[in-house]
Amino acid sequence: VSLPTNKSKIINDPVYGFIKIPFGSTYDLVEHSYFQRLRRIKQLGLTNYVYPGACHTRYQHALGATHLMWLAIEVLRTKGNEITDQEAEASINAILLHDIGHGPFSHALEHSIIEDITHEELSLRFMEHLNAEFSGRLDLAIEIYTGRYHKKFLHQLVTSQLDVDRLDYLMRDSFFTGVSEGVIGSDRIIKMLSVVSDQLVVDAKGIYSIEKFLIARRLMYWQVYMHKAVLAAEIMIVKIMQRAKHLSNQGIPVRATPDLEYFLNRSIKQADFKGRDHHSVLDRFANLDDSDIITSVKAWKTHPDIVLSTLCKRLIDRKLFRIIISDKSIGEEHISRIRELARSKYGIEGSDLAYLVSSGEISNNAYSSEDEKIKILYHGGQLKDVADASDMLDISVLSKIVKKYYLWYPKDLS
Amino acid sequence: VSLPTNKSKIINDPVYGFIKIPFGSTYDLVEHSYFQRLRRIKQLGLTNYVYPGACHTRYQHALGATHLMWLAIEVLRTKGNEITDQEAEASINAILLHDIGHGPFSHALEHSIIEDITHEELSLRFMEHLNAEFSGRLDLAIEIYTGRYHKKFLHQLVTSQLDVDRLDYLMRDSFFTGVSEGVIGSDRIIKMLSVVSDQLVVDAKGIYSIEKFLIARRLMYWQVYMHKAVLAAEIMIVKIMQRAKHLSNQGIPVRATPDLEYFLNRSIKQADFKGRDHHSVLDRFANLDDSDIITSVKAWKTHPDIVLSTLCKRLIDRKLFRIIISDKSIGEEHISRIRELARSKYGIEGSDLAYLVSSGEISNNAYSSEDEKIKILYHGGQLKDVADASDMLDISVLSKIVKKYYLWYPKDLS
Amino acid sequence: VSLPTNKSKIINDPVYGFIKIPFGSTYDLVEHSYFQRLRRIKQLGLTNYVYPGACHTRYQHALGATHLMWLAIEVLRTKGNEITDQEAEASINAILLHDIGHGPFSHALEHSIIEDITHEELSLRFMEHLNAEFSGRLDLAIEIYTGRYHKKFLHQLVTSQLDVDRLDYLMRDSFFTGVSEGVIGSDRIIKMLSVVSDQLVVDAKGIYSIEKFLIARRLMYWQVYMHKAVLAAEIMIVKIMQRAKHLSNQGIPVRATPDLEYFLNRSIKQADFKGRDHHSVLDRFANLDDSDIITSVKAWKTHPDIVLSTLCKRLIDRKLFRIIISDKSIGEEHISRIRELARSKYGIEGSDLAYLVSSGEISNNAYSSEDEKIKILYHGGQLKDVADASDMLDISVLSKIVKKYYLWYPKDLS
Amino acid sequence: VSLPTNKSKIINDPVYGFIKIPFGSTYDLVEHSYFQRLRRIKQLGLTNYVYPGACHTRYQHALGATHLMWLAIEVLRTKGNEITDQEAEASINAILLHDIGHGPFSHALEHSIIEDITHEELSLRFMEHLNAEFSGRLDLAIEIYTGRYHKKFLHQLVTSQLDVDRLDYLMRDSFFTGVSEGVIGSDRIIKMLSVVSDQLVVDAKGIYSIEKFLIARRLMYWQVYMHKAVLAAEIMIVKIMQRAKHLSNQGIPVRATPDLEYFLNRSIKQADFKGRDHHSVLDRFANLDDSDIITSVKAWKTHPDIVLSTLCKRLIDRKLFRIIISDKSIGEEHISRIRELARSKYGIEGSDLAYLVSSGEISNNAYSSEDEKIKILYHGGQLKDVADASDMLDISVLSKIVKKYYLWYPKDLS
Repeated sequence: VSLPTNKSKIINDPVYGFIKIPFGSTYDLVEHSYFQRLRRIKQLGLTNYVYPGACHTRYQHALGATHLMWLAIEVLRTKGNEITDQEAEASINAILLHDIGHGPFSHALEHSIIEDITHEELSLRFMEHLNAEFSGRLDLAIEIYTGRYHKKFLHQLVTSQLDVDRLDYLMRDSFFTGVSEGVIGSDRIIKMLSVVSDQLVVDAKGIYSIEKFLIARRLMYWQVYMHKAVLAAEIMIVKIMQRAKHLSNQGIPVRATPDLEYFLNRSIKQADFKGRDHHSVLDRFANLDDSDIITSVKAWKTHPDIVLSTLCKRLIDRKLFRIIISDKSIGEEHISRIRELARSKYGIEGSDLAYLVSSGEISNNAYSSEDEKIKILYHGGQLKDVADASDMLDISVLSKIVKKYYLWYPKDLS
Repeated sequence: VSLPTNKSKIINDPVYGFIKIPFGSTYDLVEHSYFQRLRRIKQLGLTNYVYPGACHTRYQHALGATHLMWLAIEVLRTKGNEITDQEAEASINAILLHDIGHGPFSHALEHSIIEDITHEELSLRFMEHLNAEFSGRLDLAIEIYTGRYHKKFLHQLVTSQLDVDRLDYLMRDSFFTGVSEGVIGSDRIIKMLSVVSDQLVVDAKGIYSIEKFLIARRLMYWQVYMHKAVLAAEIMIVKIMQRAKHLSNQGIPVRATPDLEYFLNRSIKQADFKGRDHHSVLDRFANLDDSDIITSVKAWKTHPDIVLSTLCKRLIDRKLFRIIISDKSIGEEHISRIRELARSKYGIEGSDLAYLVSSGEISNNAYSSEDEKIKILYHGGQLKDVADASDMLDISVLSKIVKKYYLWYPKDLS
Repeated sequence: VSLPTNKSKIINDPVYGFIKIPFGSTYDLVEHSYFQRLRRIKQLGLTNYVYPGACHTRYQHALGATHLMWLAIEVLRTKGNEITDQEAEASINAILLHDIGHGPFSHALEHSIIEDITHEELSLRFMEHLNAEFSGRLDLAIEIYTGRYHKKFLHQLVTSQLDVDRLDYLMRDSFFTGVSEGVIGSDRIIKMLSVVSDQLVVDAKGIYSIEKFLIARRLMYWQVYMHKAVLAAEIMIVKIMQRAKHLSNQGIPVRATPDLEYFLNRSIKQADFKGRDHHSVLDRFANLDDSDIITSVKAWKTHPDIVLSTLCKRLIDRKLFRIIISDKSIGEEHISRIRELARSKYGIEGSDLAYLVSSGEISNNAYSSEDEKIKILYHGGQLKDVADASDMLDISVLSKIVKKYYLWYPKDLS
Repeated sequence: VSLPTNKSKIINDPVYGFIKIPFGSTYDLVEHSYFQRLRRIKQLGLTNYVYPGACHTRYQHALGATHLMWLAIEVLRTKGNEITDQEAEASINAILLHDIGHGPFSHALEHSIIEDITHEELSLRFMEHLNAEFSGRLDLAIEIYTGRYHKKFLHQLVTSQLDVDRLDYLMRDSFFTGVSEGVIGSDRIIKMLSVVSDQLVVDAKGIYSIEKFLIARRLMYWQVYMHKAVLAAEIMIVKIMQRAKHLSNQGIPVRATPDLEYFLNRSIKQADFKGRDHHSVLDRFANLDDSDIITSVKAWKTHPDIVLSTLCKRLIDRKLFRIIISDKSIGEEHISRIRELARSKYGIEGSDLAYLVSSGEISNNAYSSEDEKIKILYHGGQLKDVADASDMLDISVLSKIVKKYYLWYPKDLS
């Protein structure tokens, strides 16, 4: 598993300083065009409309997560847990590829470009495809990613309520947005990881760091990921893509980039990624990135459809729609009044109104009591769910789902 | 209030980059020997025994707090709250001097060197003394410090549950200990301050920062301020000072530095700081710093009293006593057994045992529901206690007092 | 010049924490679509191919430079230099707009998309256009930008060998690339600025900071801006655009985004930005951003022209061309040999070879002895050129032009 | 060489995050009272008088240097250089102890407390003493420290023009003073180290980092280590100690702490550290720390000797002497005039005047052309001295010795 010396294996990263690529196979995956495309997909989509620094890419996050995975493996080995070189390589590759199924503006467009498939499933399709290309070299990585490998804690490092994915993205998103309160002590948390009965656990003295991690996650959720203006922009891009598809379905020409047109003109579903032509569908998808969306939206600023052109002009020029967010559900009356204004102002009717006026709900809980728990390890080997171990954040507080309601519409309507 | 140009008015600070001293009177106070002595008193006493970086001084903290006060004044002025230059100067001077009453290792020794006076009261004595020397220039600063000035929000900036004192020390202690999770967004919190009906309040969008601030404070409390080994060391220094006073009271010579001897040989009480000789008592106190304690403890390593010399040798060489911390109170039986071991091992009896074996409790709540509340300001001017406003940290959680119990004794006893 | 309270005027920035937009006119400029487009243009073009963090945009840099301008104005005012509110506003607006003429991948494409106009001239065209739209509100800003205003030091803050442009971009590029040695003490340098006889000068005690700034600039130049792999990628994109134009001129269809096609199909020159249709040319240009280039290059991966498609495929997949950099000029023989290999491997001839094999030179000096000097101010008012004042970096060293030679060609040729 | 699990082996450090203590013997050395005393000795003596953050200790620096040594060992091993575990342990222990011979305010007092012995020689005495206590476990560490071990590059890591000592202290001093321009890319430099023919070398692409390192070192020298006010304070403490010794030699009682009195009342020379009683002399010295100096200076504020009390009062209250620094030597006339003023103002004569008025010179070169060179490694294995390799900093510039002259005297004399 050593790396040919002519392969560059250290990458500069503003968050961690340097990231080492520890395995030859990892290096080859990074070089693959499927992975390189993540350079062209922003981690946080339109968030830079509010936090201009948030232009970092999924490429950076994927590398950052491998860095933390490597740290975690070193820590666990030091504490006497056996992790073979093969397992280390597979875990690194699994985390490297965990987000490879993301498309452009994925947070917003996940179900607009392709309808019934999640990015996790797409990541798996990509991994299988790469595995064929790499002659089975990724077998173990896929077993770990899907949770089928017998050492469950390796899967937990890749995906759980305390995985290296979250540890990297919270820190990274906090770094690039400049929201310093989101900073978590990723390295400290990793130093406190252990394995007990094949479960990832946290040493008792790490409990305050875990509390802080959960609070930071919640803060980033409301202050960044669900920021009002970010949400307003994201709904705009969703509506744009839906409208373009809608027009295209009706036979109205909607010129886009070749690859985006492919998805606009067809109804691509999960099954298409497994069918006979799945290679070409996957390759098409792998060609998409943020620039396809941006250039298409720019072109549509002058589209004859008033709904499409209005949305596109305002999104590009950052004249964001108004969004009202409330702890209580928005009254039907209020929504009707806004719809009425839109009808008269923009001269549109019926179902078309949904592209300019929209309501819905958003929700979040800091910690899920139904998913796999974060376990705290006490002297003597006793394990407790963090929700029971914390003397402050008890389970009712931690797992409480915070729900909010929104109403979204053009600013000139009120 | 402008500053003579030959006075250096910008100070390098690793936390904020630069700290400006905005007023001539502030500069003169900084230059005063009473304030300069804070250079020789560590902010966190013996905490560097666990976090070696924590050697920062009360001098740095006092300057840091003035920096944040200045930021806060600028923010509040921008939002339309009148703060005159006189009020600004007085507020800056009040926060500059708010901790001037601290003695060496004050957290531990507050009631050992002088018995019945808090550092807040001593700070006030110092301010009055300086005010006389500065011909009344500090009148307004003292009014603000003591809460007698009609603009209450200025007092709240100096001392409340969200004062610039806490905003600086949490950030600074986190910086120097290297406990990055303690980092708070002081500048962000300050940007969100407002004044409503003469009360300091926080804009609603700052609520997640406040939650984070309260959690960070709790984390620093248990992870740093009440860290097991720090506590073990602090009890050692308290016992050393009590033992030295005890021996001195019995007429046994205990050689110390001249200024420390003064306090060892007398029972100085609150009244002495107001009496006829208060100048000399205050000046004596103002001569004390960390080095008096350290050199005396070093000298006592060879004192004939076995209790004193044992404690001193171990503290200097960092052979800390064992401390057991528990959520439940320590059983009497357990304590008795340890005392018995100490008796036989060290050949001491009765009340002397208390210098080597000690038990007690420590407690903390993140937020006090009895002190002045942190108020959150909503659109429309509505105000809510943060404990009601937070959808996560409700009042029962926030104000819950976490209590722990400890037992402390020489490591060679078990 | 106060700002309507409903205008958001504080922006999060990971480099400085917060950036304040101090004037209403500045806010309106930021909101303008001409400026918003800078969100879609990376500051460092393809540099993220080597330093993945370098995805920051010209939008961020322009705001960062206004932040430093504001600091500089405050410092100079404190030192007794009169700067009126009108001058402050104009200086802020001048620096905000100083780079507004940049197109996508401007460093590389400056003379490919439009032939004979620099980005500085384009910035001026944009300013004049905006000035008309803002009814002359930018008159003073333009005077300062062009150096026609009588207070020359304001122009020097905008553009000189020690302007806030450089102070921001060095710090920002260093921050986002993770090349920590590029960090300069921008705030410290600004604190040491003064004005003497209408010239921007640096206090003598700042001389080491200036030396460090010059060295850091040189380091960033060779380590980042002229990094081998960055250079290899930039030449690729230049050749791609030249090839596309060449094909287009020959009548071969080269499908691009509408706005890029406009420039591919015409020979737009400086005069066109002043002619009768200058509005539409400027608006066309203002529609271009990184995404036009990226989507077009992606589309051209399958173009029938082998030269174009080869360059595009390799650039997108980051299979960069080889580049040899040498202190001595590359021998003609060596170049001929590589051209011969390209001829036989790719089956192309004559002038077409220049699109796949290229040689040239790059050069840099840390400090120009011909431009306006950086002046150091000594006690007593004496001024010295930094090149004379530095006891280490004398003029011969500082102004020495370092020249290097390169040869660039496909990796499969050797 | 594994560590008993009950030994704490990770230490928080604000500069690097965490420092691992990789060997059991290293841990035992850290725990030794000789090493623990470094907690009580500030790295930069009185520098906190100018940069209040500079309260970090020699303890922190020694640990930081072991951290960098560990990184360097890992890097060199990765590049195929054999370093056995024994050699790694010995190198770590050598760097851990390299500064253990420093006394309090060592930079200033090196030749005042003990006359003819450098701190390097004292470090060796300590190591030999510890080696005896550790039954020869430090044999190899001592061989490496003294340069007698056959692998010379290990010695070069400990002490050379590019050793981990400098790499840590420049970074650390820059961090704590807040002088951000001093920041060097220690980790980047270490990543670029190699070994060729048993010599430590730097890969060619690291040359800009080395240039930056040399410039940063020079900047820290003049901006921090030789800062005017720091120098003024350091001369004060030197004069205080000389005066106290002088009085003591004349039989005038000068009460100090027991350990400092030991050195004041005797003339301790190099030979005493090797003689029959060398244990007790070393132990005496090992008892000294900053607090002995501070408490003694405080006590001497009221000493009957006017020279001693004047110096002490002003040092404690930070009423620093004036210091004039000039590129040219100070005229005899000027010095005489000041001495005359001192004579009349303070009523002292003859040789006593030297305690209040002093002149001398300070000098520095960024790089010594006489010491072992920093070698740059080019492709093909060619080695060049950095002074020849740098196209900017040629040897004449780099090795130029900058000399300055000072005159120091009480402020009230002019």
